[in-house]
Amino acid sequence: MKKLRCGVLAGTGMVGQKYIQLLEDHPYFEVTYVTASERSAGKKYIDAVEGRWHMPTEMPESVKDIVVENMDTLDKVKESCDFVFSALDSGPAKEWEEKYAAAGIPVVSNASAHRHTPDVPMLIPEINADHLDIIALQQKSRGWDKGFIVVKPNCSLQSYMTPLYALHKEFKIKRAIITTMQAVSGAGHPGVASFDIIDNIIPYIGGEEEKSEKEPLKILGKIVDGKFVNDDSIKISAHCNRVGTIDGHMACVSVEFEKNPTKEQILAAWKEFKAVPQELDLPLAPKQPIIYRDEPNRPQTRLDRDADKGMACVVGRLRPCNVFQWRFTALSHNTVRGAAGGGILNAELLYKKGFLTAKLK
Amino acid sequence: MKKLRCGVLAGTGMVGQKYIQLLEDHPYFEVTYVTASERSAGKKYIDAVEGRWHMPTEMPESVKDIVVENMDTLDKVKESCDFVFSALDSGPAKEWEEKYAAAGIPVVSNASAHRHTPDVPMLIPEINADHLDIIALQQKSRGWDKGFIVVKPNCSLQSYMTPLYALHKEFKIKRAIITTMQAVSGAGHPGVASFDIIDNIIPYIGGEEEKSEKEPLKILGKIVDGKFVNDDSIKISAHCNRVGTIDGHMACVSVEFEKNPTKEQILAAWKEFKAVPQELDLPLAPKQPIIYRDEPNRPQTRLDRDADKGMACVVGRLRPCNVFQWRFTALSHNTVRGAAGGGILNAELLYKKGFLTAKLK
Amino acid sequence: MKKLRCGVLAGTGMVGQKYIQLLEDHPYFEVTYVTASERSAGKKYIDAVEGRWHMPTEMPESVKDIVVENMDTLDKVKESCDFVFSALDSGPAKEWEEKYAAAGIPVVSNASAHRHTPDVPMLIPEINADHLDIIALQQKSRGWDKGFIVVKPNCSLQSYMTPLYALHKEFKIKRAIITTMQAVSGAGHPGVASFDIIDNIIPYIGGEEEKSEKEPLKILGKIVDGKFVNDDSIKISAHCNRVGTIDGHMACVSVEFEKNPTKEQILAAWKEFKAVPQELDLPLAPKQPIIYRDEPNRPQTRLDRDADKGMACVVGRLRPCNVFQWRFTALSHNTVRGAAGGGILNAELLYKKGFLTAKLK
Amino acid sequence: MKKLRCGVLAGTGMVGQKYIQLLEDHPYFEVTYVTASERSAGKKYIDAVEGRWHMPTEMPESVKDIVVENMDTLDKVKESCDFVFSALDSGPAKEWEEKYAAAGIPVVSNASAHRHTPDVPMLIPEINADHLDIIALQQKSRGWDKGFIVVKPNCSLQSYMTPLYALHKEFKIKRAIITTMQAVSGAGHPGVASFDIIDNIIPYIGGEEEKSEKEPLKILGKIVDGKFVNDDSIKISAHCNRVGTIDGHMACVSVEFEKNPTKEQILAAWKEFKAVPQELDLPLAPKQPIIYRDEPNRPQTRLDRDADKGMACVVGRLRPCNVFQWRFTALSHNTVRGAAGGGILNAELLYKKGFLTAKLK
Repeated sequence: MKKLRCGVLAGTGMVGQKYIQLLEDHPYFEVTYVTASERSAGKKYIDAVEGRWHMPTEMPESVKDIVVENMDTLDKVKESCDFVFSALDSGPAKEWEEKYAAAGIPVVSNASAHRHTPDVPMLIPEINADHLDIIALQQKSRGWDKGFIVVKPNCSLQSYMTPLYALHKEFKIKRAIITTMQAVSGAGHPGVASFDIIDNIIPYIGGEEEKSEKEPLKILGKIVDGKFVNDDSIKISAHCNRVGTIDGHMACVSVEFEKNPTKEQILAAWKEFKAVPQELDLPLAPKQPIIYRDEPNRPQTRLDRDADKGMACVVGRLRPCNVFQWRFTALSHNTVRGAAGGGILNAELLYKKGFLTAKLK
Repeated sequence: MKKLRCGVLAGTGMVGQKYIQLLEDHPYFEVTYVTASERSAGKKYIDAVEGRWHMPTEMPESVKDIVVENMDTLDKVKESCDFVFSALDSGPAKEWEEKYAAAGIPVVSNASAHRHTPDVPMLIPEINADHLDIIALQQKSRGWDKGFIVVKPNCSLQSYMTPLYALHKEFKIKRAIITTMQAVSGAGHPGVASFDIIDNIIPYIGGEEEKSEKEPLKILGKIVDGKFVNDDSIKISAHCNRVGTIDGHMACVSVEFEKNPTKEQILAAWKEFKAVPQELDLPLAPKQPIIYRDEPNRPQTRLDRDADKGMACVVGRLRPCNVFQWRFTALSHNTVRGAAGGGILNAELLYKKGFLTAKLK
Repeated sequence: MKKLRCGVLAGTGMVGQKYIQLLEDHPYFEVTYVTASERSAGKKYIDAVEGRWHMPTEMPESVKDIVVENMDTLDKVKESCDFVFSALDSGPAKEWEEKYAAAGIPVVSNASAHRHTPDVPMLIPEINADHLDIIALQQKSRGWDKGFIVVKPNCSLQSYMTPLYALHKEFKIKRAIITTMQAVSGAGHPGVASFDIIDNIIPYIGGEEEKSEKEPLKILGKIVDGKFVNDDSIKISAHCNRVGTIDGHMACVSVEFEKNPTKEQILAAWKEFKAVPQELDLPLAPKQPIIYRDEPNRPQTRLDRDADKGMACVVGRLRPCNVFQWRFTALSHNTVRGAAGGGILNAELLYKKGFLTAKLK
Repeated sequence: MKKLRCGVLAGTGMVGQKYIQLLEDHPYFEVTYVTASERSAGKKYIDAVEGRWHMPTEMPESVKDIVVENMDTLDKVKESCDFVFSALDSGPAKEWEEKYAAAGIPVVSNASAHRHTPDVPMLIPEINADHLDIIALQQKSRGWDKGFIVVKPNCSLQSYMTPLYALHKEFKIKRAIITTMQAVSGAGHPGVASFDIIDNIIPYIGGEEEKSEKEPLKILGKIVDGKFVNDDSIKISAHCNRVGTIDGHMACVSVEFEKNPTKEQILAAWKEFKAVPQELDLPLAPKQPIIYRDEPNRPQTRLDRDADKGMACVVGRLRPCNVFQWRFTALSHNTVRGAAGGGILNAELLYKKGFLTAKLK
């Protein structure tokens, strides 16, 4: 099988590098194109990231010699790529993702720019794979031929969104109060200054609480008249904190249901939860999307973040809440499941569903 | 003025050392007695803690030569001390604190053993100084002459209990969901293994959530027929996490009130809050018990834990809660305000109120 | 091929668990026996380590149901094992390793007890595989039949010993001054208290400097008249520090040679260095035992400790020394290369050389 | 007494803030002037550092309303200041420090720009207070009236330079091999990315080793024909590492003497060491410049960095070196003794010696 050729927009940053790392030897995709800032354009990838390769494994041989381009190279992209991953900052993402899509290049994005654009799906493939139905409408209304935009939600959600959804679809959640403890890699590189986080907690991450509260409503929403309508029946309050861990966002969750489930019902809902990525056996799909650990002191950030290639959500400490009905702790890997890994899973779903195809035969 | 002579039970552990440190040059009290385990008994204090002095300042000269005793030395205690601070573990505390009190020695305790004993007051002097009224009843019903027991609550409460109380007394709190991020010093020494907390979070501290939920009800309660009756009108849910900070417990708090206050009312309630320790100008009382910081990213553990000698509670991020009405972040120093400093403040209050007196004239 | 059956003495501690982890699916060996303290004896392995599994991957299924034994079970060992790995503390190791060997069980040890026993080889297979020649003499002089003892050196040496040896054998090292920065996992679990190492360095590890200075002399020594004679031509001074990293011991090394090599000669000596484990293609042998990194700021603990399964030594910053001739920085994984991985490599070497055989056919 | 009015050049950065903090209520000096980058010019100090105040105590009231200026305000400086502290980066320092001095403003600098300028003294007041003799020559040869430049050395030296000097002057040091473990505050703010230092060591700090090896030679040098001549009799090799501590640079030192002293001689040399700052009883001078700790595991970064207001050097672990003659561990606070505190001590010395005077009477 011939692999699809993909680009990585903003491929030299923290998330971009994680894409490069995770796409090494990927069965469907190969990286053939990388963009970065003006400063890096024209350099080989290995030279552009010199001294700033932050991944725990070596830089893949196959990308070292790729010449990094700046964004304004649509003609080259059309030739070199079947689609692109976007790790752009929100500002440039707004403009460039639309330009790429208009030029016929599907864009699978991490950026927040289009998360609330009414005809752009915000995907967690285990939750709302059916939101892909909007792509046809997106293309039609915008006059785009083969290009389109899909996005993924903020990394802070990933630790609790799938476990909440598995319960919501059976028992309907009314309210949840959530406190997150988020790793420094979530801020990119250089991100958080070491002086600010050693022996410290910062109880604030700009914009993070708003995203954590608003994005779930669209993810759980549905398509009505060609646009997404939020699920406003659920209310979330999120306190977001930065702590001194390298990778892994942890969340403490208290939940109130419409139909109060038993402990056994909750555990069963999590244990039995499978969805489209598992059915399609996508390469990066976790075998079991929600792993419940019985030990009283799990999940722990360092011990559990890498569960099933960093793509599973690990949950523990299910117990009655003294104020709502149930509470638990949940964890996911923020730069894998919450960023590049989640983006690749989106692309794998798109590929299997026929939305991504090779231009070259 | 002649100082009162005090003992420190379990004076070689983390909290015991903090007592020794904070009592250096105290205007009312001087340490004349220290107990520790059998292993240390008979040694000078400096030798008993050799290589295990964990405080940031030097060991006070005045304690170095005190010969450490084991617990079973009531006759000596009666001669040497006007009262004792207890930093005992809960197990021995149950037995020994009663023996000491029965022998005429007032016990000002950090231990959890008697926190829910119906005639023992659990003090936060800014909140329930009037709970001292029970001491007379405690002494009478138990046939104790001069001895008595007062305790302080768990360190996890201190970061949010005073700010909650300042609001509760005006607007009546119905429910609060709280997540704490607690420093390693809270586990004593050796406490948490470094291998377990570097680049990690442990979402569990044995017994801590139960204490955090139950103790406030007694603290806010009142004396009825010679016993404490809890304030059951308030419900608290606490998620307690251990994080890799040295000192300082931080709490994220979401609150629901009976009478929903405005932001201005809350800020005013905190700003204007003063109580008995401030009125009596107790040596360790913070000038302002609740310090509100306007910056969007405060309080921070390392920057704010030492506010006003580590005795103030620092609060920030007051904002509407998406589920309840208001939410905020609060911080206090767990081994100062939450342990030894809190115990000393209790003793200062007792002294000023006439409950502690010198045996020697 | 039938695998050899091995035991792990002290298999529930930090190093014991690392053995269990690394031996999962090992091509030569399978774990069939585990000992631990009295407290654990009689329990299944999974129950004996409940809540104290410190490895980043899940406990192997194959060991979960092994019933943990106490040490005094020589008859069972003889039936169940072809040889044992010893992760015993030095005290019990002295006695038990001899008992096991006398009973016909080869002992591959991590413990320090026999490191300076004159007829026991202290192996780094890349350096002194020929020291195995003493085993026949060890067995003969002690009247042992099939049993014997081999040990590995202290973890603090591993980061610099192989790079030093690669130079010593060509240019003869006279003196080296070394400062190590060692991870907390080197102290086992619970090991270093978190309160002692967060935002701190402890410039002392009991016994570590003496080991770091003395053990290399035996490793580089030779067999004379059936006993090891040290290489006293080399002098090492080691400053050993504990720092707040999870895994990975780093060393800063200044070296004085008899024949001062050029930079190119040093780099070539490292690059071309291969030894017996590479020739025999042992499963855990690193492809390249010494990896030199050109970047000015490498090796770094977190980025480089896992190089080649955690078995390679990563070196960088080769530059002239302002006092001696050359200096460099070196790193190895202390619980893999420096402990369990090193022990397994020793066993692989012994197996290939015919010292370990199956009792059952 | 009227205080001298001082400016702080680059007063909003990490070192600038430390100056502001340490100068609060200083008996000789008061801050009346602050410069910063163009971006901050025209703002009040409190607004210019909004959200970036990194000190553990509150911003002094007296500086909050000072309007921050850009560098190009020599006329204002002449009116507002009797002298300035410079925390400028090396680039601008080169130019501006000379301009200020030429304009009649004494410059007490932290910057490296003029450390090797032949007529500029590089002061550690305990070591080379007599180097101030060059100021008259500096002024004469350059045609400066009241202005002059004095500098302090790099922070990495401070932990070991005074202990080495105390021995050098009695026993003459020939060679020293030193490894430092340096705190993140040494890199300023934002400085080291948290992603780069959590669970990690970076064995490289650009330019630091060169400074550590070269600056001591001038500090120990003497004035010959109006210029400094280095003491080339001593050779230092420095390995500089960045570790994840907040404040405090630690050094492991191995030393070779011309006259090998006994342990008692070394300890006496350190204990009895006093110098000009102690004789003049300068406000920030440590009572005892070199504090030796007997415990086997001291100095420790967090426990000892604040010794005597962060101005003392704490030494421990004196023991024979297996390669040279003696070795020890030394620690100092890098942003206090090693930066702002050291600069202020220089100014205190200059003041007492009559080099700084009030323009206003």
